[in-house]
Amino acid sequence: MSRASREQALDLDRRDPLAGFRSAFVFDDPDLIYLDGNSLGRLPKGSAARVRQVAEAEWGARLVRGWNEGWYDLALAVGEKIGRLVGAEAGEVVVSDSTSVNLFKLAAAALAAHPNRRRVVSDDLNFPSDLYVLQGVSRLFGKELVVLRSEDGLTVSDEAFAKAIRDDCALVSLSHVSFRSGFLHDLGRITRLAHEVGALVLWDLSHSAGAVPIRLGEAGADLAVGCTYKYLHGGPGAPAFLYVRRDLQDGLGSPIQGWFGQESPFSFDLSFRPAAGIRRFLVGTPPVLSLSAIEAGVDLVLEAGIERVREKSVAQTEYLIGLWEERLAPKGVRLNSPREPLRRGSHVSLGHPEALGIDRVLIERMKVIPDFRAPDNIRLGVSPLCTSFLDLFEALERFEKVLDEELWRPYARQTAAVT
Amino acid sequence: MSRASREQALDLDRRDPLAGFRSAFVFDDPDLIYLDGNSLGRLPKGSAARVRQVAEAEWGARLVRGWNEGWYDLALAVGEKIGRLVGAEAGEVVVSDSTSVNLFKLAAAALAAHPNRRRVVSDDLNFPSDLYVLQGVSRLFGKELVVLRSEDGLTVSDEAFAKAIRDDCALVSLSHVSFRSGFLHDLGRITRLAHEVGALVLWDLSHSAGAVPIRLGEAGADLAVGCTYKYLHGGPGAPAFLYVRRDLQDGLGSPIQGWFGQESPFSFDLSFRPAAGIRRFLVGTPPVLSLSAIEAGVDLVLEAGIERVREKSVAQTEYLIGLWEERLAPKGVRLNSPREPLRRGSHVSLGHPEALGIDRVLIERMKVIPDFRAPDNIRLGVSPLCTSFLDLFEALERFEKVLDEELWRPYARQTAAVT
Repeated sequence: MSRASREQALDLDRRDPLAGFRSAFVFDDPDLIYLDGNSLGRLPKGSAARVRQVAEAEWGARLVRGWNEGWYDLALAVGEKIGRLVGAEAGEVVVSDSTSVNLFKLAAAALAAHPNRRRVVSDDLNFPSDLYVLQGVSRLFGKELVVLRSEDGLTVSDEAFAKAIRDDCALVSLSHVSFRSGFLHDLGRITRLAHEVGALVLWDLSHSAGAVPIRLGEAGADLAVGCTYKYLHGGPGAPAFLYVRRDLQDGLGSPIQGWFGQESPFSFDLSFRPAAGIRRFLVGTPPVLSLSAIEAGVDLVLEAGIERVREKSVAQTEYLIGLWEERLAPKGVRLNSPREPLRRGSHVSLGHPEALGIDRVLIERMKVIPDFRAPDNIRLGVSPLCTSFLDLFEALERFEKVLDEELWRPYARQTAAVT
Repeated sequence: MSRASREQALDLDRRDPLAGFRSAFVFDDPDLIYLDGNSLGRLPKGSAARVRQVAEAEWGARLVRGWNEGWYDLALAVGEKIGRLVGAEAGEVVVSDSTSVNLFKLAAAALAAHPNRRRVVSDDLNFPSDLYVLQGVSRLFGKELVVLRSEDGLTVSDEAFAKAIRDDCALVSLSHVSFRSGFLHDLGRITRLAHEVGALVLWDLSHSAGAVPIRLGEAGADLAVGCTYKYLHGGPGAPAFLYVRRDLQDGLGSPIQGWFGQESPFSFDLSFRPAAGIRRFLVGTPPVLSLSAIEAGVDLVLEAGIERVREKSVAQTEYLIGLWEERLAPKGVRLNSPREPLRRGSHVSLGHPEALGIDRVLIERMKVIPDFRAPDNIRLGVSPLCTSFLDLFEALERFEKVLDEELWRPYARQTAAVT
């Protein structure tokens, strides 16, 4: 293969069928290369307009009437759209709370339904907040949490899962795509392993929703949660979503019984009766401004089509790994993501002992925004609707310059960036 | 007393030291009389500007860097300001989740700390969502929930509380101001009753924060939650707050262990270690757009001074009750709120068998927005920073016209408005 060039990148962009979606997003600074959409996705122009409308035309002018004019059902309406991206039916997904609160609600619901099984299984590729939630909920229900260890920080072997998911297992809970390495679990296979022993499975789709086709229904998955602010472009801390397979809904209950999960919240009865269907997993009044900001990004992913999004994502992470191999690997940068695109989400982690300093100098002097994940990972995220091949080419050129000129030296050992 | 007149109302407005605050809010339609600020407070002009700034200048332009430029500490910064309104010290209040989720976290924390006490005490004046949460958490911890019944829908007697709050009581949890009647509990007295038997007390301040001076510290109150979208003008479904007295913080833990409550979230350790102080009661990533909208309203209440706000609130609810007595009582409308201003929050409930129809016609034809609460209450809320005496005079005139001309007839038995 000939050495990668700017012309080649421009040519790939010209042939990209999704290139036009870039214009649906705000690009405040055209020189800035943003590769952290896996942490916080870019602002869709439609979201900026919608937020302004909700604040000024709805809250400002319609006041409390807004609840009867769209706000009350918004969590279900947006949930249904997200459901289409994750292979769910209507009425199986709703937007609510944060990912961690949703994980708590669904894990607790699952454990309450399996009082005689004592084991919860996860792995150390899972997002730490998920492990914290599972630690708390396991203690609350007197269960044993087993966290499988990855050998290389990348993957846990089939054998380890088959051994851990035994008859006494109540719940298996994993991140579909690992936040650090981008490792992509085989959702169908793990779900089958859990079901073979009668356990429920609870997926965190935060790093796959909007980037990877997910077939919850086809896989027969039981439960899932996920965030909306990464590849769905929902905005900082936007409310999360949760999925409960329809036939399980009426048999499970949220441990947090709030009025938005009540059968008839505005009759103000004194006793809780859970609503029918997915609504029972709601709790309190949703944050409408943040909730409203989600829809425009989801609409863009739906319009692009998740299969085309994935196709571009794979092409771009492959391209990125090709650039790494040619330019950075010879200079001591490791690949901390799976090489096999089938087992990789939409970001690529590169490892270097001075990763923190490299990350800082890229952000502060080179106009490239990746992020740092301890101990030594620089994550380069591909947001298929916004990221161009030229972005990737330019970013790796600047990365190479940081290494060649040791520009990271004054930035080493600084405080890590948030999120 | 001479019959109330428009001139008298205008004169009261002229002498109102807080009248100037009205111009800090958006009044889209000058003819509309909004008396539902006890459900959703009006939009402060400052909030509209702030939301636009966060969406466009922060999310749009600063992208993920926003977390290091203010978002990460915003929940604590806004919490500290709310703390000043409720008599808390710095580091005792934080903004997080919804009121119901916060109630769950703090009630569960309290029950986990009192494993040998079996009773939870509340009353039927409490907001139903609070009772639902307490029902769920009591079941989870194997406790007995005792809900004291009010005799007249207004108040529960001292004797009933003294009898129910016994040695086996782990937790007393009440709404400071009742959502339906506006009854104001004696926070200090109930707190003392609970402490005499070694129980913890958990207040819901949703209907008092920003309208009634609250002295959590002085009363020695243990725990509290509250919403920000009523008298604090935080916006629809804006995140709630929670308070934990400082000396209790390190001994209590949230059952929902999320990364924002972890000692060091960005070290991505696999084991949860709760943060020191109030931060440990946080869970997931906060919804930044909704969170940002809270501050401007809180600043306005701080600037006005909660004592002056309360003074105006009492003057206005007294004025409203005077108008009711003169004009509506003779026509069969009952007062469903306490007559004694010391035992009343900032709304007045009026009862009528056709309350639902009256509420609808006021909203749809008379340009007055109160709200309806089953079975027969029309709530008229006073937002002291926005409501004028003329608003109240005009509203009661239109109310009287609805009765005189039986305008409610075509609206009877319609579906109740949301929230």
